[in-house]
Amino acid sequence: MKIFGIDPGSLRTGYGCVETDGTRHRVVACGAIRTPPLGSFADRLLAVHTSLVAVIADVNPDCVAIESLFHAANVRSALKLGHARGVAMLAAAQAGVPVVEYTPAEIKRAVVGYGRAEKPQVQQMVKLLLGLADVPSPHDVADALAVAICHVHSCPPSRVARALAPQRPATRAAASWRSYRPAR
Amino acid sequence: MKIFGIDPGSLRTGYGCVETDGTRHRVVACGAIRTPPLGSFADRLLAVHTSLVAVIADVNPDCVAIESLFHAANVRSALKLGHARGVAMLAAAQAGVPVVEYTPAEIKRAVVGYGRAEKPQVQQMVKLLLGLADVPSPHDVADALAVAICHVHSCPPSRVARALAPQRPATRAAASWRSYRPAR
Repeated sequence: MKIFGIDPGSLRTGYGCVETDGTRHRVVACGAIRTPPLGSFADRLLAVHTSLVAVIADVNPDCVAIESLFHAANVRSALKLGHARGVAMLAAAQAGVPVVEYTPAEIKRAVVGYGRAEKPQVQQMVKLLLGLADVPSPHDVADALAVAICHVHSCPPSRVARALAPQRPATRAAASWRSYRPAR
Repeated sequence: MKIFGIDPGSLRTGYGCVETDGTRHRVVACGAIRTPPLGSFADRLLAVHTSLVAVIADVNPDCVAIESLFHAANVRSALKLGHARGVAMLAAAQAGVPVVEYTPAEIKRAVVGYGRAEKPQVQQMVKLLLGLADVPSPHDVADALAVAICHVHSCPPSRVARALAPQRPATRAAASWRSYRPAR
């Protein structure tokens, strides 16, 4: 099962895809999308969207996880963040991938075990849990991986096993059942 | 010159395209995009984006005008509005159409002549200025047409004339200039 975490921002958007078999997790892809500093705000959103669409198509995740935000420093920063978050959610919806949201406290609790953990603690735990050589940098990448880990920890193992099980060919099964139906 | 006004929202997005020759204005297209009430938030953004991309491709505007927002009722509503506004700006950027922004006071001043005008005054003036039989409804449509009118009023007539003038074939002109260059 592959979970694609996103930490959206109009200047820099972090992403990280974590693959899990229920017990072991590994990073499939991670990075930061930097937007053109001289471009208009619409061009920045376009850059974020285009890059996310390409990466999501490449890693083909089962789910997109994103931090839910109910508070920001102020209304203006909330508006700007909302724009970037909107195009990130759109990229997921266009790929037909469900979007799950977790509050900052839920993410910290899942990764560090404490809902009010500091950023460096989250980064260190992301490094440990994913067996990385270094702390993911910039911090947006660590934050994106953290929200992906949070969803991994929230999924019961049965759900992961179900997601990993080969899909039953439902249409063919139904057709063969009909052909073997005893005649009256 | 065609100006495409958008009044974004996650539940309902108004749009209105105004065509002008510098003195007379007419409505090319207008309407409201209603999002599926039972869908997820990502599905709503997808519905807004898909519809806007289709309408923008259909009317082929020269410019997209949108209300700039620096304040909202609270941070939560600012975040939600930011998402819808983000996908609206993205639709414009994907069509290669420049985006212009006007504050609510600028829009009211351009349409009613008074920066603190009430909503019904704006709606009545939109009806009058565009020669409509009725007040555009729902109010999101009137708001979208108002921001388009604001941009029309902000454009000097010379700029409208330039936008309407047939484009000079720049590449061919440069090539012929080269061929007529006197030999040394």
